[in-house]
Amino acid sequence: MINACICTIGDEILIGQVVDTNSSHLAVALEEAGVRITRMVSIGDEREEIAQTLRKELSRSTIVITTGGLGPTKDDITKGVLAELSGSKGYVEHAGQLEMIRKILAFRGLDMLPNNRAQALVPDKAEVIVNQLGTAPIMVFRNLFGGTLYALPGVPHEAVGAIPALVEDIRAHQALTHICHRNIMVYGIAESALSQLIAPWEDALPEDMHLAYLPNPLTGIRLRLSIYSGEEGEQHARMEKQLSQLKAILGDKVYADGDSTLEETLGEIFKTNNLTVSAAESCTGGEIAHLFTSVPGSSNYFLGSVTSYAISVKENVLGVPADVIREHGVVSSEVAAAMAEGVRRLTGSDYSVATTGLAGPSGDENNPVGTVWIGAAGPHGTQTVRYQFRNDRKRNIERFAASALDFLRRFVLADLNR
Amino acid sequence: MINACICTIGDEILIGQVVDTNSSHLAVALEEAGVRITRMVSIGDEREEIAQTLRKELSRSTIVITTGGLGPTKDDITKGVLAELSGSKGYVEHAGQLEMIRKILAFRGLDMLPNNRAQALVPDKAEVIVNQLGTAPIMVFRNLFGGTLYALPGVPHEAVGAIPALVEDIRAHQALTHICHRNIMVYGIAESALSQLIAPWEDALPEDMHLAYLPNPLTGIRLRLSIYSGEEGEQHARMEKQLSQLKAILGDKVYADGDSTLEETLGEIFKTNNLTVSAAESCTGGEIAHLFTSVPGSSNYFLGSVTSYAISVKENVLGVPADVIREHGVVSSEVAAAMAEGVRRLTGSDYSVATTGLAGPSGDENNPVGTVWIGAAGPHGTQTVRYQFRNDRKRNIERFAASALDFLRRFVLADLNR
Repeated sequence: MINACICTIGDEILIGQVVDTNSSHLAVALEEAGVRITRMVSIGDEREEIAQTLRKELSRSTIVITTGGLGPTKDDITKGVLAELSGSKGYVEHAGQLEMIRKILAFRGLDMLPNNRAQALVPDKAEVIVNQLGTAPIMVFRNLFGGTLYALPGVPHEAVGAIPALVEDIRAHQALTHICHRNIMVYGIAESALSQLIAPWEDALPEDMHLAYLPNPLTGIRLRLSIYSGEEGEQHARMEKQLSQLKAILGDKVYADGDSTLEETLGEIFKTNNLTVSAAESCTGGEIAHLFTSVPGSSNYFLGSVTSYAISVKENVLGVPADVIREHGVVSSEVAAAMAEGVRRLTGSDYSVATTGLAGPSGDENNPVGTVWIGAAGPHGTQTVRYQFRNDRKRNIERFAASALDFLRRFVLADLNR
Repeated sequence: MINACICTIGDEILIGQVVDTNSSHLAVALEEAGVRITRMVSIGDEREEIAQTLRKELSRSTIVITTGGLGPTKDDITKGVLAELSGSKGYVEHAGQLEMIRKILAFRGLDMLPNNRAQALVPDKAEVIVNQLGTAPIMVFRNLFGGTLYALPGVPHEAVGAIPALVEDIRAHQALTHICHRNIMVYGIAESALSQLIAPWEDALPEDMHLAYLPNPLTGIRLRLSIYSGEEGEQHARMEKQLSQLKAILGDKVYADGDSTLEETLGEIFKTNNLTVSAAESCTGGEIAHLFTSVPGSSNYFLGSVTSYAISVKENVLGVPADVIREHGVVSSEVAAAMAEGVRRLTGSDYSVATTGLAGPSGDENNPVGTVWIGAAGPHGTQTVRYQFRNDRKRNIERFAASALDFLRRFVLADLNR
């Protein structure tokens, strides 16, 4: 596998003003093409720092990709540094990019100013890939300190837009190995317990296969299995074999084979089976509805929800009996069940899910902070479950909501498998 | 100003599966404390690469901060590399972190597995700052190749949660120049328009003062004014003078003096004036309720909400008349008003806010994607407003919700100033 380094140039990233998303887009595309990213570096708009970093990275990577520093303003100095590094004797105007600059300015109804035209100038040692989305050309410097350097603009949609041409150029000039990746989505088990559970399987993986754990409070743990050698067809067969063993170990803790979220997985279940759903939320305060509706097309199965923060709303809107609340407390199995049944009745949905708990900062007389009761209701009855998390309000809201989605998933699947 | 390097360790970033947000959070906090970030580096879970990179960065920066690679699984090797680099003779169990691990597991109702307990082991040359939010301890290695190394967990809320302790330790051990920062929160104006509006004021700022624009779809634009020289007392007086000029220019576009969010600002208004609020959401799908309830103590003023995704829920739960929907369409001023009035009636709140619009991916026959109608209702009547955004579902949901909160803020303040 050939190695690459992604180098982001610009002060705005170093002071935290901008989160660098270009690098991860580039990494996904390159990894899929069979290029291994060995490091990402962010540096400021400083001549000596840029020159030193690029020289160093070019000498140890086959490819270095820079983003940023190509704009028309005074603090953008990358092009000048590249002219020096490449030993260019001067600048030449690139006709294709100049034409593109002309088009872009005409579209915006602007005249061409000298600093717009200067954007089409490139060091004479550079090859140019015309930037179809902006004024700064994409430059390629081959055989520079032992590597190839691609200079991309920093504006996110221009950098992302340059990826297909970049990958095409790399394919044309490098012999790439094929890497195979697959994801399995897991919910309802802690990372440490998961690691222990699958240790025998993981330890027996062949040398060229690698498993990564990617935990996220809203999606559980994404397990990514990668194969770094062999032919494409044979890779798929080996992958399939290992994954089927892994899935057998994990059982219904696996909620999706491939990249997905709980709300997308649930959405598929509802859509496929022509079912509708609603939610009644207390402690999750709208997060479950937000997750459901973050999926495009969710209006086909998500009817709506009630956030019943006040007891009066639980009673008057959801119809939770006042004596149930009095007898069992707001955070109870009985109230979770009554909320789920209430919103199901109110919206007429096939299924519903409800949460009542204490996200924090404090608990109440009966329950510690981090307690949640989840209820799920459907045509065959109602079930509830209790979970206990910790004292981090933001985190608890996410965990409560994700746990509720997973509980509902198991509840609906059990019905469908009746 | 002392220099620092932030080093992110983990394959998941290099293959682009995860966007590194920790570095920008760290950068903002360190910059505010008077530490200059000179580079950010991301490397994989590879022993030699980690060792070489850390040695290099420690030799040229006063501080190196790593995030990631401290988990309990086999691919997390940072701790081992740090033990080697620091010349530790072995590992010692840190009682404080072990206690925290015990608490976390007990709270979740989990048994302590050997790999949980192993999390409390640290190289004997490490100082420990107990991680209050997770099982992996924060480690400090002083005088390591000429610098100080802080090893933070990679899980975002743990990394961000570690920032106050990190900054405190840096302050205790380094002579930092005092930099004075103040934030002003602005909503309802684009960055370019804002920049144009305040250009005369900004251009007249003294040499040692700097203004940064930190835009965020949910909170608007945070304007951060910094003073890089002088004595603390004198800095505050100069800051006050400049900010009062800035606030006079911006008027009610400023929603908070100091770091805040729209939902926190609204919460303060409701609490101070003993008012309650509710929400009816269509296109924002629970995001407004989620924002309200993300504020601790919001149960004092937020009564609840209805997410009315289906028309039947708009009619049957919120009581929006069917003929209003038929006549004006679901995305209309009339429906936004009826939704706001409906949820206010249903919950008995003093104020309410409602949204109906098209977040995407597509528009309908009457409205392009990105259209939203917002309604606000209160004791003195109802008002609506229409906004038009672009074609990005996730972004639109955030922008719709934030715009609704800001519209409600102006609506309530106008009532209070009657």
